Amino acid sequence: MSGLIRLRGFIQAMTRLADSGAGEARWLTEGAGLLRGLVAKDDWLPAEMAEAGPTYRQYLLHCDPTERFCVVSFVWGPGQRTPVHNHTVWGLVGMLRGEEVSTEMRPGPVGGPMRPGQVDRLRPGEVVPVSADTYDIHVVENAFADRVSISIHCYGGNIGAIARSVFDPATGAARPFISGYHNKAVPNLWDRSQELAA
Amino acid sequence: MSGLIRLRGFIQAMTRLADSGAGEARWLTEGAGLLRGLVAKDDWLPAEMAEAGPTYRQYLLHCDPTERFCVVSFVWGPGQRTPVHNHTVWGLVGMLRGEEVSTEMRPGPVGGPMRPGQVDRLRPGEVVPVSADTYDIHVVENAFADRVSISIHCYGGNIGAIARSVFDPATGAARPFISGYHNKAVPNLWDRSQELAA
Ligand SMILES: [Fe+3]
Ligand SMILES: [Fe+3]
Ligand SMILES: [Mg+2]
Repeated sequence: MSGLIRLRGFIQAMTRLADSGAGEARWLTEGAGLLRGLVAKDDWLPAEMAEAGPTYRQYLLHCDPTERFCVVSFVWGPGQRTPVHNHTVWGLVGMLRGEEVSTEMRPGPVGGPMRPGQVDRLRPGEVVPVSADTYDIHVVENAFADRVSISIHCYGGNIGAIARSVFDPATGAARPFISGYHNKAVPNLWDRSQELAA
Repeated sequence: MSGLIRLRGFIQAMTRLADSGAGEARWLTEGAGLLRGLVAKDDWLPAEMAEAGPTYRQYLLHCDPTERFCVVSFVWGPGQRTPVHNHTVWGLVGMLRGEEVSTEMRPGPVGGPMRPGQVDRLRPGEVVPVSADTYDIHVVENAFADRVSISIHCYGGNIGAIARSVFDPATGAARPFISGYHNKAVPNLWDRSQELAA
């Protein structure tokens, strides 16, 4: 199966889930099942959406036109990590290639250092949620110092456009943050001429 | 207004029209009104989606994830024209830049030449429908021999994936045709970080 067909099938299934009026609980179960299916194989991500840079990169693969959900490729160069940040919407993280470590960060005493909480190490094919019910504030890093890791994230909105926060782990101070995306173009999943002509 | 914001607003309005259950009649009136708004200004089409080539080019700008409609930039180099072709779904053509001429082609005697019917010359800002109620078979050409013309097309499906036909104008003979798209990537309309940070 061509990689784009696999990604298109996932996006159409996620769209049907949105159309069925899924709330967070169904996204975190049924959506997680769909994402598990997507990351079960690592043969479909376009090479342009897998390139590492000087800092970690967020490549939008698809945004629902009414911004109910999005699908993003996170590419971690060796040793790269995010700032401490929140999401404000549900999220699903599916490990595609390599491994990453997500560390929950909890508020500490006022003006004092934040404290690490739950630590999740993701291996290829694994899917974990982020939500207010688990933890919403974390830091994520490549588990490897010597190679690229890639995870596929889904969120309950257009994550690149959501006003959220990064935090200073030494003081807990929050600063406004809108992540945007690295890529100016997303894959064209809709040219079926080759598959149909075959 | 940034060009991508304009295109995003159009696509979101078209999505709402699809979500409201619009049938062909509403697409050809309300959808046409939306497209008229889009092509009223020529300041939004990304340059990569406006490049002419050795033959006319079809750049996908957006496909609805459930393939209810699509939006395509047709770029005509000087003097370029399509084969005689049909669509099988409703269409809307909005002239953005330059001018084009659409000539209806009607079946002639069996095995004999097709006959031209209605001729539409489109000027910038104009929108015309193609549908079974007007005509579904035509040839389209750049009205100019010395410059590029560009029109924005919407169709009631994923036009690049629909099995349709091209016709030999000398004999009326039909041959199967799936157009596909020229571009491997579509514009990322969803990075709102600049507009929201402003
Ligand atoms: Fe995160
Ligand atoms: Fe046509
Ligand atoms: Mg006219």
